[in-house]
Amino acid sequence: MPVALRAPYLLFLGDVPAASDAKTAAGIAHWRRELCCGQLRLPGCQADVGLPDVSLAQARERGAQSLVIGIAPVGGAFAPSWLETMREAARLGLDIVSGMHAPLREVPGLAELAAASGARLVDVRVPPEHLPVGTGAKRSGHRLLTVGTDCAVGKKYTALSIDRALRARGRDSTFRATGQTGIMLAGAGIPIDAVVSDFVAGAAEVLSPANAPGHWDVVEGQGSLFHPGFAAVTLGLLHGTQPDALVLCHDLARSTIEDLPDFSIPPLATCIARYVEAARLTNAVVRCIGVAVNASSLGTAEYARRRAAIEAETGLPCVDPIRDGVEVLVDALDAAFGTAGAAA
Amino acid sequence: MPVALRAPYLLFLGDVPAASDAKTAAGIAHWRRELCCGQLRLPGCQADVGLPDVSLAQARERGAQSLVIGIAPVGGAFAPSWLETMREAARLGLDIVSGMHAPLREVPGLAELAAASGARLVDVRVPPEHLPVGTGAKRSGHRLLTVGTDCAVGKKYTALSIDRALRARGRDSTFRATGQTGIMLAGAGIPIDAVVSDFVAGAAEVLSPANAPGHWDVVEGQGSLFHPGFAAVTLGLLHGTQPDALVLCHDLARSTIEDLPDFSIPPLATCIARYVEAARLTNAVVRCIGVAVNASSLGTAEYARRRAAIEAETGLPCVDPIRDGVEVLVDALDAAFGTAGAAA
Repeated sequence: MPVALRAPYLLFLGDVPAASDAKTAAGIAHWRRELCCGQLRLPGCQADVGLPDVSLAQARERGAQSLVIGIAPVGGAFAPSWLETMREAARLGLDIVSGMHAPLREVPGLAELAAASGARLVDVRVPPEHLPVGTGAKRSGHRLLTVGTDCAVGKKYTALSIDRALRARGRDSTFRATGQTGIMLAGAGIPIDAVVSDFVAGAAEVLSPANAPGHWDVVEGQGSLFHPGFAAVTLGLLHGTQPDALVLCHDLARSTIEDLPDFSIPPLATCIARYVEAARLTNAVVRCIGVAVNASSLGTAEYARRRAAIEAETGLPCVDPIRDGVEVLVDALDAAFGTAGAAA
Repeated sequence: MPVALRAPYLLFLGDVPAASDAKTAAGIAHWRRELCCGQLRLPGCQADVGLPDVSLAQARERGAQSLVIGIAPVGGAFAPSWLETMREAARLGLDIVSGMHAPLREVPGLAELAAASGARLVDVRVPPEHLPVGTGAKRSGHRLLTVGTDCAVGKKYTALSIDRALRARGRDSTFRATGQTGIMLAGAGIPIDAVVSDFVAGAAEVLSPANAPGHWDVVEGQGSLFHPGFAAVTLGLLHGTQPDALVLCHDLARSTIEDLPDFSIPPLATCIARYVEAARLTNAVVRCIGVAVNASSLGTAEYARRRAAIEAETGLPCVDPIRDGVEVLVDALDAAFGTAGAAA
């Protein structure tokens, strides 16, 4: 079973010195505000994700089930100034949820307090045990996977946007998280890059199980087939997801893999062809339905020119999900697969 | 650093009821006889790998450094009848080496005895810690990787054969093991399918590091790009190995992936094209130099016909390493890459 979190969440912002240190909390407040009952900030905290400031006691009154560590300072360790709050939350019975590199059990006293109160310590970087080997067996329901020309090109944001747009149209859709931030946003998922390689495809099968006809699982992609370090993760996720639809994500500011200037990003049409070829192993009728770009580096005219060139090269619609939204991609999805999952 | 074993080995055959339960020990005795100082059999043992029968005390006199559990009965657990011998070996200071699923530390008392004598408990299924992410940085030396149409098609045997043939020609060559049996045969390696997916390519880079010009690392392949459960392992190993040469391995008795009849094995020329395409990410000049088949299911005439058809389809030499040896493949390697690594 995938990791699953208990809502409502109290978002813990600690005493981080900059708003950018609270990106995870900001993402949760943006995408899943309905799951949040407040934010808890220590003296000196410079972040604010726009939720009511509450104490631990007030959060309990609001029904909080989890203290979510929504901050990621450099180094990935728990600051000494946070520990008493974390221990008090565990004493009160709140699950402690963390995506930090350091495991929660390393916080002195925390495991004992959680055990006494019945709270769970949830490290979302740790995959579930007993994952199966992938079988490729056909399953019902539709699946869309965001795939990338590189890491960190908007795969999570694009998937969240498509899931939200589908639901806004009254369709059955579930966002499926594959990384620690996505899991904290979604409240469930599997950190796919932490899974032993023999079980990556099987983990993706568990993450997006058979579902009702017309239902879409919108799966957060990881890595890139064109990254010499991470392509294994990408391929296992691709095979296990068994996607019907792909969306290629790309950062228009990049021509090479980040930090690896010897690795050129292929032309987007080539990227699409390679992803479709690989995905056909488990779904012979997979197709790419569009391109999602990060155009934040470009002015309006230059972006329009690049977008038109991509649409001409690939024959597919291209959007920047932040500038344009993703309605055009969902239109393409409907055109390709119909609207069978629409609410009556 | 990869796992590394200490020779000479005392091969432990326990009391297994059939020779087929001692395949690992038989493989070690066949491929690395020079590393073995004897076999240790308990009453009732029906296996015999052709080494002198010795006691623990006699093995110590012969310089034994490791007791290698060379047997793999169904279930993968240590039999109660073996435990006293294992404990006595640890007490005498021999490393205990196991490829069983059950970890050695679960044998009562073994860890304490090993700690007291300075012996190591080596589970070859457990990968080393602190593996890096792959970078794809170019490195010196040559590498050959055996790749497969499926699992269990002779990738390890073919790699061992090519390594031995190269060394017989006076060339610099090292077999690089990626699975537990290969590691026990080679005395070193990384169990690549047990590595967390983010680090598979990096593990392969560590396994086959930069080497002298003309030196060959002959790397044991894993899985198959065409297997819906294991392709991630295969791709990470392919990218990290950065091979100059590939040999495609195939079992002539199979037309579909084992146990997955819905998954057809593509034509061999297609398999080669897909492997070369994927491998080009980290080595633009990679080429496939031949095909190694398991023809044990075929008579002489039928094998000759199939082999000729494969050579016509692929334009490459085809051998069954067991029937034909691999000299033809090493000739092809020499023709493609020269004999710069030959001893003076």
